[in-house]
This record gives sequence, C-alpha cells and structure tokens, in this order.
Amino acid sequence: MADDLLPVDEARARILAELTPTAAETVALAEGAGRVLARGVTARLTQPPADVSAMDGYAVRAMDSAEGATLAVVGTAPAGRPFGGTVGPGEAVRIFTGGFVPDGADAVLLQEDATASDGTVRVNETVKAGRHIRRRGLDFAEGAEVLPAGRKLTARDIGLAAASNNPWLAVHRRPRIGILATGDEIALPGDPIPPGGIVSSNAHALAALVRASGGDAVVLPIAPDDTHAIAEVAATAHAFDLLVTTGGASVGEHDLIQKALGGEGFALGFWKIAMRPGKPLIWGRLGRTPVLGLPGNPVSALVCGVVFLIPAIATLSGLPGAAAPTRRVVTAVALPENDRRADHLRATLSVDGDGRMMATPAQVQDSSMLATLARADALVLRAPFAPALPAGAEVEAVMLAELGV
Amino acid sequence: MADDLLPVDEARARILAELTPTAAETVALAEGAGRVLARGVTARLTQPPADVSAMDGYAVRAMDSAEGATLAVVGTAPAGRPFGGTVGPGEAVRIFTGGFVPDGADAVLLQEDATASDGTVRVNETVKAGRHIRRRGLDFAEGAEVLPAGRKLTARDIGLAAASNNPWLAVHRRPRIGILATGDEIALPGDPIPPGGIVSSNAHALAALVRASGGDAVVLPIAPDDTHAIAEVAATAHAFDLLVTTGGASVGEHDLIQKALGGEGFALGFWKIAMRPGKPLIWGRLGRTPVLGLPGNPVSALVCGVVFLIPAIATLSGLPGAAAPTRRVVTAVALPENDRRADHLRATLSVDGDGRMMATPAQVQDSSMLATLARADALVLRAPFAPALPAGAEVEAVMLAELGV
Repeated sequence: MADDLLPVDEARARILAELTPTAAETVALAEGAGRVLARGVTARLTQPPADVSAMDGYAVRAMDSAEGATLAVVGTAPAGRPFGGTVGPGEAVRIFTGGFVPDGADAVLLQEDATASDGTVRVNETVKAGRHIRRRGLDFAEGAEVLPAGRKLTARDIGLAAASNNPWLAVHRRPRIGILATGDEIALPGDPIPPGGIVSSNAHALAALVRASGGDAVVLPIAPDDTHAIAEVAATAHAFDLLVTTGGASVGEHDLIQKALGGEGFALGFWKIAMRPGKPLIWGRLGRTPVLGLPGNPVSALVCGVVFLIPAIATLSGLPGAAAPTRRVVTAVALPENDRRADHLRATLSVDGDGRMMATPAQVQDSSMLATLARADALVLRAPFAPALPAGAEVEAVMLAELGV
Repeated sequence: MADDLLPVDEARARILAELTPTAAETVALAEGAGRVLARGVTARLTQPPADVSAMDGYAVRAMDSAEGATLAVVGTAPAGRPFGGTVGPGEAVRIFTGGFVPDGADAVLLQEDATASDGTVRVNETVKAGRHIRRRGLDFAEGAEVLPAGRKLTARDIGLAAASNNPWLAVHRRPRIGILATGDEIALPGDPIPPGGIVSSNAHALAALVRASGGDAVVLPIAPDDTHAIAEVAATAHAFDLLVTTGGASVGEHDLIQKALGGEGFALGFWKIAMRPGKPLIWGRLGRTPVLGLPGNPVSALVCGVVFLIPAIATLSGLPGAAAPTRRVVTAVALPENDRRADHLRATLSVDGDGRMMATPAQVQDSSMLATLARADALVLRAPFAPALPAGAEVEAVMLAELGV
C-alpha cells in the first residue's frame, strides 16, 4: 500500500495538465475587477494628451523668467480648458495642475514662487526650461498595451483601463464549478438530521472557497449513497467546467461513485495522496467534464481545496495554476520528524518582539476538528520525511487569509 | 503653510473616530463569506454527537482484543447508521470513519491490523482502550460560541457555522458608499471627450476598491464643476453610509465643493495631509452622512483610498479600522532622505536568492502615472524625515494584492 501513494505535487500537476482556460466573454469595465483578461487592453488615447502642467502656477517662457522679471498674465489654462493663444515674449498664462501648456510656453513658474498683482506676475525664483511640465504620453501612448492578457484585474487596473478609454473588457468566463456532497448521513443546516447523522458543511464551505477564488459555485442537492441518485446528478455534469464531489472517496465508498458514474462514461482515477489531512482523492472525467472527488471529512475537504481546487480554478480562469504561495515563518514550537505524508499543520500566527512572524501549530491536529481549521491563520507545510526542527526554526506556511479562504 | 500639514495617522484616526458600524441584517449561511458577524455564532449541536471511530476497522472491547484473539462480527456501524445493539464479550462490530462507537465497545481495531473471514475477525495487533475513538464534543459542544461577533467570515468559518447547524447569520450590512466624480473636463470611457479633457478613471477604480473591501459601491453620474449640479447629488447623500468625492479637492477647487454643499448643511473640514501622493483631503458631514473628498489625480485618489477609505470601510463594516498591514521587505536600491511628507513609493516585488522579498521603487514616482501604480505590487512607506537608506536596508511596505486592490 505504501508504494502507491502519489506525491502532492505530482497529483496537482496531473490535474492541472488536463484543464484548459475557459473561453472569453465581454464584460463592462465596472464588472472587470478580479476577472482575468482574455485579451490585452490597448490604450485608445495618449495620456496626458499634450504637455501639461504638473503644478498650479504660470506657464512661461523660461528665457523671460529670471528672478525679478515681471510678466503680463494674458489668460488662464485650467485642466480641461486649454488656452487657445500663444504665450509671447514677456507674457504668462495662469495654469493649474493638468492644464495644457500653451503654445510658446516651455516651463511652469510655481505659484509659491510668484507674486501676482493686477494683470501681472512677478518671478521670485528663476525658472528653468521644462520645469513642472509632464510630457505628452508620460503615462501611456495610444496603441500601447497597458494590461496584458492573463492578468487578474485589480482596482488599479480598472482605473488604468478606464483612463485609457476602454469601456469593455474581454475576460475569461468564471469557471462554473458544480459541488456535489454525497452521503446518507448528512443533512443541510436547519434540516432534520437523520439518526446518527451530521450536518453537511462541505458544500457551502467549498462554494465560498470557489467564489473567493474567482469561480461560480453551483451547490447541487445532496445525493444519498445510491447509484441512481448519483447518476442522476452526473447526467447534468456537462453544465460545469469542473464537478467537485465530496464524500464517497474512502476505500470502499469510491466503488459507489465509480459504479454510479460508470453509466455516464466516467473514466475514473482513484489516488491515494501522500498528504495529511486528506489522502484519498478521485480524479476523472465525466464526458468532457473533469471530476475532482474530495474526501468527506470537512478539514480534509478544505485542505484538499487549498492544495488542488484553488490551483484548478486558477488554471480554468486563465491564470497559471500553481501551489499556493508560501511565506517563510518561524515555528514557535519544536516539530517532530515527519513521516512519508506531506503534512499541513493548522497554525495560528503572531509577531514576536523582533517583528518575526511566528507560527504555533494547534496541539491536536485531528482531521475531524473543523473549529481548529477555522481558528487557524496558516497551514505550516511539512514535506515527506522532513527532519525534526527545534522551536525558532524556519518553516514554509500557506497564509489562508491571502487566499481569501 | 508648512505648519498646518496634518500627519497621516492623525487624519485617519480623526476619520475613524467619527464612523460607527452599520446595523445588522440576516443573511443565508451561503451568502455569509466575507461578511462581518454582528452577532456571535453558537453551536446548536455537539460535534461529534457521540464517540465516533476515527478510522475504518472494528469496534471492540479492548480487554478481549489482545493479539491473536478472534472475535465474532455481530454488526456494522457506518457513518450515519449506528449499530443499535451492544458489543458483548468476544464480539466486534465493523465500523467506518465517523461511525458511532456502539455500546460495549471501548476501542477501534484498525482494519489493517485485522484479518476478516466468514463472520469473524482476527486481531493482529493488540488494541488499547480508547484507541482511534474521537470523543463526543471533540470539535465543539452545543451552546459554545464557535465564531465571535466582529469576525470577517472565511470559507472555513462558513463550514463551521454549517457544521454547527446555523442556516442563518447576523452580519453587518455592507456599507453603501456613494462615489461622486466632479469636474468639467472628465468623461466616462467611450463617451465623447471634451476638448482638453481626460477620461474619468477614479470612480470605477474606487468602486472596485470599495467592493474588494466589502462595501457596496454606487457610482453617481459625473457632476460638472457647478454648484447646482453638485448640490443636486448632495441632496441624495442620506442614502449612503459614506459619500466619497473625487476631484475638487485642490486649493481653490474646494471652495466649489464647500459652496455647493453648504446649502445641504455641509460641515467642512479641509485638510492638507503630510503625505505624497495625495495631500489635499476633504472630510466633513452632510447631514448625517460622512463625506470623504479625495484628490482628482488618479494615483493620489487610489493611494488615499488605501490609506483612508479602506480603513473607513472596515470600521463601517464592524471591523477594527486600522492602517493597512505592512510587511518588512528589503529595498533593492538606495533611498534618499525623506522630507516632511510621508511617502508611498510604488514598487515592484521580487524574491532574491536568499528568499528575501525585495522591493524596487519605480524610478519616476510622478503622481500622474497611473500605469506605474497598476504595475506596482507594493507601496513602500517612507515616514516623514526618514533617513537615507542604502540598498539592502529593510523598509515597511503595504502589499497591494493582500488588500485586493
């Protein structure tokens, strides 16, 4: 049995290799935040569109603007209302930040370096040519790609797409993820609980994880452990970019899933993964739809969600699918040598007096303890056969808040 | 003028002191992720509800289960289908993970330590009392508070609320933030651009920032620089928990906002903040509605959004409002001594060979350059009068991705 444990990285790589990004859709700019660009965004104008003032002051000719000179103020150029004329010798135009620098002027005299009186302005500090002018195209030029395909759009990117005059964006469709909890013993919160049963927590927790990762989650009705019921759901799998099941992945149980899905042409992979918590995993395909079968145990399901499902949603969304980013932190306690399973220790984080991020793994890591997972800030990663470490040693940890889960 | 610059922390503290959390609303569990609990969540059941098996195997009496013993298998106890009888002397019950440990049994024999044959099972490894049993209430007990008021709910928390049988949650309402861009010179993307004008990027960038921070954003039609138009919008401010304006905050311009809002009972604060970019800020109240006036410059508006608006939304949402968390990183280049304004340098991040996070500030930090902001990963913070630093020195930085902006 020991021999057929699949390493975590290999399992993830095999899953991601079978997934392709969703096709494009057009969304309004205002709906673009958090979406992944299917096509790059090109600037449709040049910004600034002309040389503009970087400050409030006076547009002047530097050659006329030595300290002590007095200039005639012949107009104003606020942002949005260019001065139509030309600044001639001995002349100045009142200008404001963002105002177009008028013809003839080649510098801006700061208002704090000027004394204005009736129709004139006195130069109190010599002005150099080019000072306080933002050149045309300083931010971006028409035709330039301001945001590349594959980028997950931030609020700042929305600003840049707007400023470059793009009211529409081509983004990858949100991957639609069906979530199917199976089991005779589970009930939805508030529903009657069967004798000996428990309340189902996986489907809605995974739905929240899917949404936080940029997917659309569709929570399917709970399927009892019955091949007919599961097959009925499976027949609708074509509606999804990925079908996630939870439960029915233990030894023995997976036969049920396999049997139920067999009629729908399910090509089954059943993997025992060298990880804790959450070792059994189903990976296969129902027609064209990939199927990821997570364990029924809530902690295992969520940790497998972090390890496999989030990268899968990233790949489907048009992002590089990769292991969750980790951060180097310091373990607050000694850690024992690890066995052959990659371990994911639920840990809380704190900052010590030296500003170091300290991780304290929960003392009991039993995989049934969901409250311990909810209270955790991070998963401390322990590679297979990682050596024992003293308190104060560095370890890698997945920051759960950074994943939005 | 130098004397009346308000420090960033003081300005933020004054803003937050005037804000109170929104009232509660009831939402379905499935809608709770990312929301902030207005009331704690109490477990409505005990989990596990009884002593259960932690593994697949056989429920046995430890005193009968020394290596070599053979036990009669008298029933099965899968999860959700408890065995109704009692395990008597010399007996065992087939049990699966999560199955209730039947009366009489006090330990679980692992299936890998057992040899099953027709109606019996042989014990291949002596079983100790209590082994592989999860005690009733190990995860949580009925009546215990599993999630406290004030918590921003994660996917894991949704799982815990579900598992503890809570179909509904009491959360703070999403703060509704009105966003008003003002200016004669701005046009929406795709609309005709007035001569000398620019495309408005602030409103939709700020809306994305608001949504990423847990607020509801309402983008108002652009108001021209005209007291009547601004006053008309202001008359609807009561609909918002916070009204954000952008533009009209420069010297001179703020008179317009003040005049326009005066008729609606605007109590104005106009602050010059000791920060770069983004020094001018309006803070006041229109009737009961707080008003935050951000600069019109897009980079300044977004940086002020990070520094003031995100903490304001947090406070309105029932979270502690505080400065954005920072992370200690290493500057890749020497930094000059800072002047009296707190600086926020747009920087990209990379990881060096030793795993250190390196920040490289953009060479030109002109506040009109939105593309530089979009490309940045972090804002490197430079306190007023911070001394010059060599390349390789540690600095504090705000991670923009962690804020979701």
